[in-house]
Amino acid sequence: MTEMEASEATLSTRTQRRRQRTQARIVEAAERLMREHGVEAVTVQDITEAADVGHGTFYLHFESKAEVLRPLIDRMAERIHARVDRVTGGKRDPALRLATGVRIALYAIASDPLWNWYVFRSGTPFRRLAEGMGTAPQEDMKRGVANGRFQVTNLRATWSFIDGALIGVLAAWNRSGMGDDAAEITAELVLRSLGVSTEEAARIAREPLELT
Amino acid sequence: MTEMEASEATLSTRTQRRRQRTQARIVEAAERLMREHGVEAVTVQDITEAADVGHGTFYLHFESKAEVLRPLIDRMAERIHARVDRVTGGKRDPALRLATGVRIALYAIASDPLWNWYVFRSGTPFRRLAEGMGTAPQEDMKRGVANGRFQVTNLRATWSFIDGALIGVLAAWNRSGMGDDAAEITAELVLRSLGVSTEEAARIAREPLELT
Repeated sequence: MTEMEASEATLSTRTQRRRQRTQARIVEAAERLMREHGVEAVTVQDITEAADVGHGTFYLHFESKAEVLRPLIDRMAERIHARVDRVTGGKRDPALRLATGVRIALYAIASDPLWNWYVFRSGTPFRRLAEGMGTAPQEDMKRGVANGRFQVTNLRATWSFIDGALIGVLAAWNRSGMGDDAAEITAELVLRSLGVSTEEAARIAREPLELT
Repeated sequence: MTEMEASEATLSTRTQRRRQRTQARIVEAAERLMREHGVEAVTVQDITEAADVGHGTFYLHFESKAEVLRPLIDRMAERIHARVDRVTGGKRDPALRLATGVRIALYAIASDPLWNWYVFRSGTPFRRLAEGMGTAPQEDMKRGVANGRFQVTNLRATWSFIDGALIGVLAAWNRSGMGDDAAEITAELVLRSLGVSTEEAARIAREPLELT
């Protein structure tokens, strides 16, 4: 590396770090404002003022108000995956892991106004819940199909079915609550639709969520 | 009934009939225009001009462009129910009737641009497919629960699950096609989630759709 290349690399790393700091400041300000006033009430201008950045800077980082929530949701999804790992305590059964993930995710989304807004009102047409959940559940699903735990003949159709089903349950949950065991029932139905027997689905969907 | 009451009743019936004729003319014009130019391209003004009614008259009958499609969709849903009756040929098994309905409805909605638009782009927030399908499938579902054909512990959660699942499949279908047996796979998953065994679900979801 020549001296000039080295100094350009340092500069670009520094620029990158500054960009990241700015982005973090925007996200932080947005979250704080939205949790205080509700997502709808907060404008991009409110966010840029609170983060002390210009309008143009905001749009360098995000296409819209909804997109500011994206990094927050990614982080929450990561926390859910980590919790699934802890709760299932190293057990690798994809049925148990998927059911646990469905339960934890449904509770999290239903109880977090920011996440809920992103799923239902961000204006993204039929935003796929699965996209927001990252690749972990898809890997459990594929593993379960590969090792015969699940009976799936069309992976894409099955995935869309489950994805939509979770949104359907959340939508009904939003409209008027759902009863204490809605997340467990939903996890049970997911397992059934993957070909797990009714008896086993009922049992797995009700495993304790405490840490083992 | 006095003579005056009788004449008022005649008048009100006549008014009612005239209102119905006007409404039918608006719906007819809207359908013709939308099938020719696509739903998005057609404005309320296009419809009122083609139907030869005033702007105000339109809004006496319908709240929005999307709502004009409602009577059309009700009629299509009726035709689907009638076809389910014919195809199942008097067999009353709720599993067979629901699976048949799912298959016929998915094909109908996926292939009808007007219906498809209504489900996905009419602006109605997460428009419930079930609402559009009327009460027939709900009755099959309740009957199946009552006579033990289905294993359902929370009817509302299960209904929302299936409702969302169908929308999820249709959304994926819209994005990029789905393979020849997507409707059959979906019907199979619906039956599984209702507690029908994988073997039976696979068989029932592939019963011939020809008239018996």
